[in-house]
Amino acid sequence: MLQLERGRLVDAWFGVDIGGTQMKTALVDGTGSILHRQALDTHPERGVEDACERLKSVLRDSVRAIDINIAQVRSVGVGVAGFLDQQGVILEAPNLGWQDVALADQMRQVLAKPVAIDNDANVAALGEAWRGAGRDARTVFCVTVGTGVGAGIVCDGRIHSGATGMAGEIGHLVVDRDRPVPCGCGNVGCMETRASATAIVRDAKRLQAAGELPSDVAIRGAADVFLLAAAGHAAAQQVVRDAAGWLGYGLALCATMLNPDVILIGGGVSRAGAGFVDQIRASFNQYVPKRIAEVTDLRLAELGNDAGVVGAARLAGAISGGADEAGGLPNG
Amino acid sequence: MLQLERGRLVDAWFGVDIGGTQMKTALVDGTGSILHRQALDTHPERGVEDACERLKSVLRDSVRAIDINIAQVRSVGVGVAGFLDQQGVILEAPNLGWQDVALADQMRQVLAKPVAIDNDANVAALGEAWRGAGRDARTVFCVTVGTGVGAGIVCDGRIHSGATGMAGEIGHLVVDRDRPVPCGCGNVGCMETRASATAIVRDAKRLQAAGELPSDVAIRGAADVFLLAAAGHAAAQQVVRDAAGWLGYGLALCATMLNPDVILIGGGVSRAGAGFVDQIRASFNQYVPKRIAEVTDLRLAELGNDAGVVGAARLAGAISGGADEAGGLPNG
Repeated sequence: MLQLERGRLVDAWFGVDIGGTQMKTALVDGTGSILHRQALDTHPERGVEDACERLKSVLRDSVRAIDINIAQVRSVGVGVAGFLDQQGVILEAPNLGWQDVALADQMRQVLAKPVAIDNDANVAALGEAWRGAGRDARTVFCVTVGTGVGAGIVCDGRIHSGATGMAGEIGHLVVDRDRPVPCGCGNVGCMETRASATAIVRDAKRLQAAGELPSDVAIRGAADVFLLAAAGHAAAQQVVRDAAGWLGYGLALCATMLNPDVILIGGGVSRAGAGFVDQIRASFNQYVPKRIAEVTDLRLAELGNDAGVVGAARLAGAISGGADEAGGLPNG
Repeated sequence: MLQLERGRLVDAWFGVDIGGTQMKTALVDGTGSILHRQALDTHPERGVEDACERLKSVLRDSVRAIDINIAQVRSVGVGVAGFLDQQGVILEAPNLGWQDVALADQMRQVLAKPVAIDNDANVAALGEAWRGAGRDARTVFCVTVGTGVGAGIVCDGRIHSGATGMAGEIGHLVVDRDRPVPCGCGNVGCMETRASATAIVRDAKRLQAAGELPSDVAIRGAADVFLLAAAGHAAAQQVVRDAAGWLGYGLALCATMLNPDVILIGGGVSRAGAGFVDQIRASFNQYVPKRIAEVTDLRLAELGNDAGVVGAARLAGAISGGADEAGGLPNG
């Protein structure tokens, strides 16, 4: 790295997390510290080129804000909510309405930097494995429970993407063959239909309609159901216990297959706290071989909303050198 | 490699597959070709040292048989039916009755060669990924259906062992929560209780006792049930279809998690042939996300009984160099 005429002596990587509502960005240094973060509305309906142009402005602003030169930004990593192929083409992104878009190529052209791209759940898992709750583990399984249920698998610091980038689709494990609730994916009985925020809200509303939960409480999100459970409402407690039970079962299937060092639970639903994790753990232990139960650490994720941008920066580091676990890059 | 004074100019790796009944061995060259194979009774009750000493004699005999020098054998790879730790210690091998045995260390001392060791299902998967039905794939999931059901995961030519060497325990996925048949592992409803040769024989005998299958046919193994099915007995066909259905379901769970290029089906039960694979495929398609179903190749394994020794030789190659996919080692 050259000593620049002015500004801080630091290499940086630009991490971008593209969701249906917001795009989060961060300039991240080689140790995983966030130097500068921003968030902007995605406006997916305006198209990919528009999004790239706005990300270019954001990058310039961030570079200026921390007083470095654009040349010090080595590369760009992107996590995006969608199905991708190995060349960084978005095959389908239901939450963005984007289809068959060469996102990596477009970003490379607009930002004039090397660009690495992966699915958002994978990238969040990479962030947690690098600098979050999985930083001491070799094989990290990181599940994100929110509107949907997704997961990423990181082995020895690298994402396991699978043949076509679809590994870790825990939300679409068909776990409930008895009550085959239709899933958005076209299948029935998927994990997502039993253990997502969506499922928790659906079940709570059903019980509310049946008079088992107070009718004067607005159930807008899973957080409302967790509050009702904490306030002692048995029906809400049962809904939470059911979701935890299915999550524990699904994670047991994953651990039986993968034998990870650690399973991390992130996403909105994870904010239900330690009691929720205990319930997941109880179900997990019931369905996983004893030898695997003994060695699997099950914890809450740590990075929250930063997991995506930190993981994206790590992904960027993998194509440009640096941003790695050694973390030995000089920091101004 | 030195030109030796006499004999063939070839590097070789010694692959060993230790099962409950037999130990199979092979000297394998850098292209995966078997130069010489042997098989001997395991006699696990005589202990590990005895087994190592007998393997030493076998190695000498094989070296002599193909007219090479013992120095040309670069290293030794071992697949063993049991739970291992990362140092090559057998924690438990139920079919061998061995427990807390430092097998890798003992073999290193007795054979005076570098030794690499892994679980037999993993090693068989490595063999198939290297030179068998998975040779053109990056991520290979290889399931072995016999007395039990085991699997190995190979990514980019390396076994995914997991945190404690227990990855791929597909036989102990708890798939049937409705009819919780006890499994040898202590859990209930495991895949092995529904889709192994043992399960097929058990179900067929039950139907035979109920008068639904001819009483004069001895049902000794799954092959007998496949014969009855092929002869048109509806009850036997149903037993086979059930097993295939559960296998397809379990493999769908695995593919949803791992998104492999190819799933290979090996072991005794796979000899039921293409019709059995078609039934597995039908069930698999029902339970896997469509995007994954489209890209997953499901085939019979190719190497049969050789998968273990070939995979073990590949494992050996990984610690001594050579025995790799390049296959460019000179061959006398």
